[in-house]
Amino acid sequence: MKATRYEGDKTFTVIEKEIQAPAANEVRIKVAFVGVCGTDVHIYHGMMDKRVSIPVTIGHEMSGTIDAVGDGVTDYTIGDKVVVRPLDDRKVKASDKGFNHICEELKFIGIDSEGAMQQYWNVPTFVLHKLKESTDLKLAALIEPLSVATHDVRRSGLVKGETAVVLGGGPIGLLVAMVAKEVGAQVIISEVNPNRIAKAKELGFDAVSPIDTDLVEYVKSKTENRRADVVFEVAGVQPALDVMCEVAGIRGRILMVAIHGVKKEVDLFKFFWKELSLIGARVYEKEDYEKAIELITANELPFEQMITDVQPLSNIQQVFENIDKNPEGLKVLMDCQL
Amino acid sequence: MKATRYEGDKTFTVIEKEIQAPAANEVRIKVAFVGVCGTDVHIYHGMMDKRVSIPVTIGHEMSGTIDAVGDGVTDYTIGDKVVVRPLDDRKVKASDKGFNHICEELKFIGIDSEGAMQQYWNVPTFVLHKLKESTDLKLAALIEPLSVATHDVRRSGLVKGETAVVLGGGPIGLLVAMVAKEVGAQVIISEVNPNRIAKAKELGFDAVSPIDTDLVEYVKSKTENRRADVVFEVAGVQPALDVMCEVAGIRGRILMVAIHGVKKEVDLFKFFWKELSLIGARVYEKEDYEKAIELITANELPFEQMITDVQPLSNIQQVFENIDKNPEGLKVLMDCQL
Ligand SMILES: NC(=O)c1ccc[n+]([C@@H]2O[C@H](COP(=O)([O-])OP(=O)(O)OC[C@H]3O[C@@H](n4cnc5c(N)ncnc54)[C@H](O)[C@@H]3O)[C@@H](O)[C@H]2O)c1
Ligand SMILES: NC(=O)c1ccc[n+]([C@@H]2O[C@H](COP(=O)([O-])OP(=O)(O)OC[C@H]3O[C@@H](n4cnc5c(N)ncnc54)[C@H](O)[C@@H]3O)[C@@H](O)[C@H]2O)c1
Ligand SMILES: [Zn+2]
Ligand SMILES: [Zn+2]
Repeated sequence: MKATRYEGDKTFTVIEKEIQAPAANEVRIKVAFVGVCGTDVHIYHGMMDKRVSIPVTIGHEMSGTIDAVGDGVTDYTIGDKVVVRPLDDRKVKASDKGFNHICEELKFIGIDSEGAMQQYWNVPTFVLHKLKESTDLKLAALIEPLSVATHDVRRSGLVKGETAVVLGGGPIGLLVAMVAKEVGAQVIISEVNPNRIAKAKELGFDAVSPIDTDLVEYVKSKTENRRADVVFEVAGVQPALDVMCEVAGIRGRILMVAIHGVKKEVDLFKFFWKELSLIGARVYEKEDYEKAIELITANELPFEQMITDVQPLSNIQQVFENIDKNPEGLKVLMDCQL
Repeated sequence: MKATRYEGDKTFTVIEKEIQAPAANEVRIKVAFVGVCGTDVHIYHGMMDKRVSIPVTIGHEMSGTIDAVGDGVTDYTIGDKVVVRPLDDRKVKASDKGFNHICEELKFIGIDSEGAMQQYWNVPTFVLHKLKESTDLKLAALIEPLSVATHDVRRSGLVKGETAVVLGGGPIGLLVAMVAKEVGAQVIISEVNPNRIAKAKELGFDAVSPIDTDLVEYVKSKTENRRADVVFEVAGVQPALDVMCEVAGIRGRILMVAIHGVKKEVDLFKFFWKELSLIGARVYEKEDYEKAIELITANELPFEQMITDVQPLSNIQQVFENIDKNPEGLKVLMDCQL
């Protein structure tokens, strides 16, 4: 079988490997599609060389079918369509208070251990979610990032009739916006990149640039001055942090989805004054995966349009080089059987 | 009657004034005690000269008895013991979403309009809370700041068996700590001022200095490594903002009680990583007053020890000068009939 490996220094190789029999309580997945995540791009750029053990097969946004089952596996049979929730929480402790998905010693599969960018992938059954026979495996590669969005929206407590402002219309921001709209909220996307604004509009969203539109006034005009009930910070930049405290209305909830590597300035006075909440959100829990699977299987949201390219896995080096050259693309998938 | 007035320039005067008949739907209160709040000290220091309309009678932490009632007042009779919840929310709008206590056009009585530092005070009935015959009027002057604490603890969702860390052992921090302990939580106070640490210990608290104790390690040792379930930021300084994100455990809730006048640095990565929440808290709602009244009336917490001085109202100038000279005092009351 073919497997890809990140070798450091912006280099992927494609190697030939023996197909392995799955160990007890493991399955072998024939990987169908694997999506490229912002984190994979960070790895490619060498920014996570201290964390990954080079050479390493990465990839955590995937879909596939069960190809073989190990001893003791009773819940899965060959041919089942599956996705992997790439969280290894086996080292959970009492001090993690039952929050397994963010436990102190969590390992992220596909970063901290071998991932999905290969033709066959052996994983323990506890990471699996079964799909319906009818689920499209191409769309199913979006389930992992979509679960980030279902988690964020669930943690926000967003309900029908509320207004959500999404700061940042990248892949995660757009998925958050879709889930928020599906809940029945009014959704406004703020994005600076004109191509991404155009894309957001294509997907049916109200999208504005905070550079040429006064976002706060715009949101006030759409909410009879209430401002946003929920703000999703999915841009990861200081201007988004500045505007989030302004655009949130009284008792507004701000979801911190973006990852800020260094300390940033926050207007804490506004937290006091309007009794705002800032709610951190990281990855997903089991029920967020289930919700994402339900949405992908129903296929009533514009998921297809999120996939801007599909390439053979064997082209991996070129795929990553192209992402750097064309940062406007949203989600690039690799077909792992090619 | 005697009334005091802030005249600007660190100066209070005591003037003679006519006692006024209460207007319709108003009562006249014979003020018993009035507490000096940090905000009153700010006003004295001239830091709020733009907001207050000099000359002005300030004061919002008070207790008293009904002395006369205006037309249409049916719920109060002469002699009733009362406190005032000093929030004028008459300009509440639909966009305030029913959160009257933080409505956009809220006026704070005793800052934005005439306050309690006088012998008689006329107020509309909607600001009143009735006390029991048995409630001690001296302790009742603590109901306003205690309501800040009952509000903060209620908004934190703190429950029995959890651990709360209170950053800052000033008057508000100590009241928060009392309410948190009353809920059944383990409470740890972090305070830098040795006199206030001593006071916190006198009140029966576990109190440490983050200067000579590693607060995070200390809290871990007291929680089997869980760290704090709830952190109350009641210090208002950058080191407290730095430690709050460290000392909070997984899914920890951080209550932003302190007022930060300028943007400050916050470790947003920790919000993502541990799924922390930051919850802004401002003043109080009706039910927080009711809870505070219940606690003061029961008098089972060391409230008496919070009152470090009682002076005649006519000494107001000296009272404020002394607070500046002796910042270790906790709550100074003025007896308004002297
Ligand atoms: N919480 C989690 O578990 C989790 C999971 C996945 C990704 N993330 C984080 O979510 C964030 C978004 O991920 P992504 O893959 O969509 O990234 P991305 O970089 O593709 O998207 C960010 C978008 O924000 C836009 N932007 C920049 N400045 C802006 C501004 N001032 N106002 C509005 N928009 C602005 C950019 O143009 C870009 O389109 C990243 O920080 C990522 O690390 C978090
Ligand atoms: N949210 C509200 O509605 C509301 C109401 C009243 C007061 N407040 C605010 O609450 C805060 C506390 O009020 P207060 O009257 O108790 O003030 P205070 O100044 O008396 O108390 C603050 C305490 O923090 C201590 N401190 C300083 N640095 C510290 C550090 N690094 N670690 C731990 N402790 C430290 C100080 O020694 C002091 O005792 C203020 O910011 C005030 O404006 C808010
Ligand atoms: Zn990802
Ligand atoms: Zn006060």
